[in-house]
Amino acid sequence: MPLKALLLITAALGCAATPVLAKPKAETPATVTETPEVIATRLRDAALQSNAAYDFVAQLTTRFGARPAGSDSERKAAEWSAAELKKMGFDNVRIETFPLVIWERGAESLEITGPFAQKMVVTALGGSGATPPGGVEGEAALFETYAEFIDSKADLTGKIVVILQPTVRTQTGQGYGVNSGSVRRSGPEEAKKRGAVGYVMRSLGTEDHRFAHTGATRFTGVEGLPALAISPPDAEQFERLLKLQRAGEAAPLKLKMVSTPTVRTGGQSQNVIAEVRGSKRPNEIVTIGGHLDSWDLGTGAIDDGAGVAITMAAAKVMIDHSLRPERTVRVVFWGSEEVSQPGDLGLSGANAYARSSASDTHIAAAESDFGADVVYALALPRTDYADFNKTLGKVLYPLNIFIAREASTGGGPDTSPLNARGVPVFDLQQNGTDYFDVHHTADDTLDRIDPRKLTQNVAAWAATVWMIANTNVTFQPTNRK
Amino acid sequence: MPLKALLLITAALGCAATPVLAKPKAETPATVTETPEVIATRLRDAALQSNAAYDFVAQLTTRFGARPAGSDSERKAAEWSAAELKKMGFDNVRIETFPLVIWERGAESLEITGPFAQKMVVTALGGSGATPPGGVEGEAALFETYAEFIDSKADLTGKIVVILQPTVRTQTGQGYGVNSGSVRRSGPEEAKKRGAVGYVMRSLGTEDHRFAHTGATRFTGVEGLPALAISPPDAEQFERLLKLQRAGEAAPLKLKMVSTPTVRTGGQSQNVIAEVRGSKRPNEIVTIGGHLDSWDLGTGAIDDGAGVAITMAAAKVMIDHSLRPERTVRVVFWGSEEVSQPGDLGLSGANAYARSSASDTHIAAAESDFGADVVYALALPRTDYADFNKTLGKVLYPLNIFIAREASTGGGPDTSPLNARGVPVFDLQQNGTDYFDVHHTADDTLDRIDPRKLTQNVAAWAATVWMIANTNVTFQPTNRK
Repeated sequence: MPLKALLLITAALGCAATPVLAKPKAETPATVTETPEVIATRLRDAALQSNAAYDFVAQLTTRFGARPAGSDSERKAAEWSAAELKKMGFDNVRIETFPLVIWERGAESLEITGPFAQKMVVTALGGSGATPPGGVEGEAALFETYAEFIDSKADLTGKIVVILQPTVRTQTGQGYGVNSGSVRRSGPEEAKKRGAVGYVMRSLGTEDHRFAHTGATRFTGVEGLPALAISPPDAEQFERLLKLQRAGEAAPLKLKMVSTPTVRTGGQSQNVIAEVRGSKRPNEIVTIGGHLDSWDLGTGAIDDGAGVAITMAAAKVMIDHSLRPERTVRVVFWGSEEVSQPGDLGLSGANAYARSSASDTHIAAAESDFGADVVYALALPRTDYADFNKTLGKVLYPLNIFIAREASTGGGPDTSPLNARGVPVFDLQQNGTDYFDVHHTADDTLDRIDPRKLTQNVAAWAATVWMIANTNVTFQPTNRK
Repeated sequence: MPLKALLLITAALGCAATPVLAKPKAETPATVTETPEVIATRLRDAALQSNAAYDFVAQLTTRFGARPAGSDSERKAAEWSAAELKKMGFDNVRIETFPLVIWERGAESLEITGPFAQKMVVTALGGSGATPPGGVEGEAALFETYAEFIDSKADLTGKIVVILQPTVRTQTGQGYGVNSGSVRRSGPEEAKKRGAVGYVMRSLGTEDHRFAHTGATRFTGVEGLPALAISPPDAEQFERLLKLQRAGEAAPLKLKMVSTPTVRTGGQSQNVIAEVRGSKRPNEIVTIGGHLDSWDLGTGAIDDGAGVAITMAAAKVMIDHSLRPERTVRVVFWGSEEVSQPGDLGLSGANAYARSSASDTHIAAAESDFGADVVYALALPRTDYADFNKTLGKVLYPLNIFIAREASTGGGPDTSPLNARGVPVFDLQQNGTDYFDVHHTADDTLDRIDPRKLTQNVAAWAATVWMIANTNVTFQPTNRK
């Protein structure tokens, strides 16, 4: 068992060497005189003293590196996680498997062959099509915005479409949200329909360093088209070249792109499930978690090693302090969140869990999948829980977290199949200002995580989940328009 | 001529659209009553109003991308630069060529194949040897410091040496300096002598993002050995794995490395030379410049597009204001600074220039080759020019630059052959605190340059060079110990 290694790693990281895997202390159990908020406050403060989340994500990313959906690495990480969760004292630890079509990156490159010959930093989009091994060549059709491309009447036959639309930095991720469905999901298919031989897009990432950001695309009505994302600095290079071209300084750019991914059917992925069984209402479930898979470029530290570590540690602090909630808190490490599946709407792990838990009574659900920066707000599915909000607000405000007044919750991608069938979902909203600097790049590694910020997340989740698991309020899903 | 493009680029960059290539204004020429410091101050302030340096480095990096030593791209950049310098009004613009052995990067990768299988972010060292196309495999011999490796009595036959020594962040670059000669220059040869089949080193870069830093290595007595640099976050991953190994958690790591560079004789590179001819003592030369070549990973914006742009713009401001120094100011864009040559000590362009200028009277020389951050000190070759220092100090202090009290100058790599034959060299010392975050990586692109900081450099160089070109002080080289 890796306690010694954990402590060594902890020591190497300069953290206090809290023996995070020590046996539960003999704490005074909750008595009838202790209200849920008293215990939630105790859990909050205990979480702030623990390195459990950081140690877990350090181990996970060090031992398994990248964990692409359906890979050996993802499977081994799931097996290791299940073993660790058992050792920590979780109940009903299990792995559920599901089939997966596996997309695997091949060789990839993009170069301008003329008139300003140079190589770009690129990465293929997950689910995109392949060029021949020698690549394809074509004239660049440059578009500064996606709308210009969609509205264009130009003949794109044989051309390589290049979309230069930037991703705007926002706290909430809206700047990413407005681009992901269009530029990345639909763009390659739209380009294929218009006769293009390739698709190149400015990475869905905020301006930071010269990393290309991958992510899933999808083809519904056509065969796949080769599609690459270029780094933001390379997109700016294209913008300057476009200006030279418009100034009559240069002929249109010629591009050569190579991308040779492969697709394999018959693969498999898995969810890891563990519980803190409820003391009074064990069949009422609060599901929390993150996703265990990552893109292949980084080691998936902020996306989403952080999320599984935060939610695991929030439940673990209850176990460590012998505090059992009335309802069951279930932690799920979803598999294969990142990939789209042909003929599916993606989220194979989420759908597998939704199926296996179809007969369970879900009180609420939420996923942590927005990095490792601090939580600044709790959004509940509706705004009409005034007393509950007031009480929980007292517990969360010291963590610099408010209760959102206008709630329209998403719950995180892996809770969406639950939400779709009426399970109320909540959001512990994280500061995403810098998230898209690193998201889906090779730079998503452990050094991007600030242990203190990670710990603030754990404290927020522990307190919030305890309150939800012990309240008599009946949550309702967000009203659909 | 690209004025329109320049203005478009300038406008796109949000800079004031100063018509930097406009004809020299009809300024009042220097009169006998104007002391050198009055004119140096005027040049300083004029430089601060100009975008010339930023526009030049934007054009250079946009049009030619990376400019590896001996490449078509380096040659085209030299030809374009010479044409631009002529248009700007420089005198005696010329290109001098010299022969070069060309090292070119091939495929490159490093993976841990067991027991913690994962891929690393790497780049081959310039001048390093090749593996077979399928790579080499071997057990990792991990060393936390270079000294441990050198002192080790362990049998390294068939192993892959991995050096994890970090580069310490300093303002002056000392943290890099202590590693470059040992870890990068000598390390691969030492590993080869000890029977290793490959060499892997933590990049000579400060901790920042997941970029691998290339740079030249050298083999004097043995055949080349494959040698890769890993990114700092990957080195930290190795450190954590080493701790797991020492804790008995894991067997020794197995590595597979691929690197297939090629070497080609019969290549050629070139220096670009331009002058502002002196009005009274034209045969006395002050040589300044930067190097036009770059590593192949980035576009060579801070290393060293910035340096050629700064020194070019410092001389250009004299031309633009019809201010001709007494001595000749010569600007050299050296070629092939980055590479070591077999049987040579590298610096082929510097040596070619030293030979071609062997009969010239050099008063002083200096290169700008430390990025694009601000200048904070001027170091003259000796400290005994009190009046000169006092006068120049008055001109430089408003730029936040002091005159160093203890001078031991280097002059920059491409002035070293001049310095070796007794030419006094000076240093406009730049803040290098963040330089080694980006140095020799794919991240060395235009967006790393702050235009205001670049302009401060130009002002410092313009004022300093004017003073040196007009003084009656006779500079002496730094006393050698």
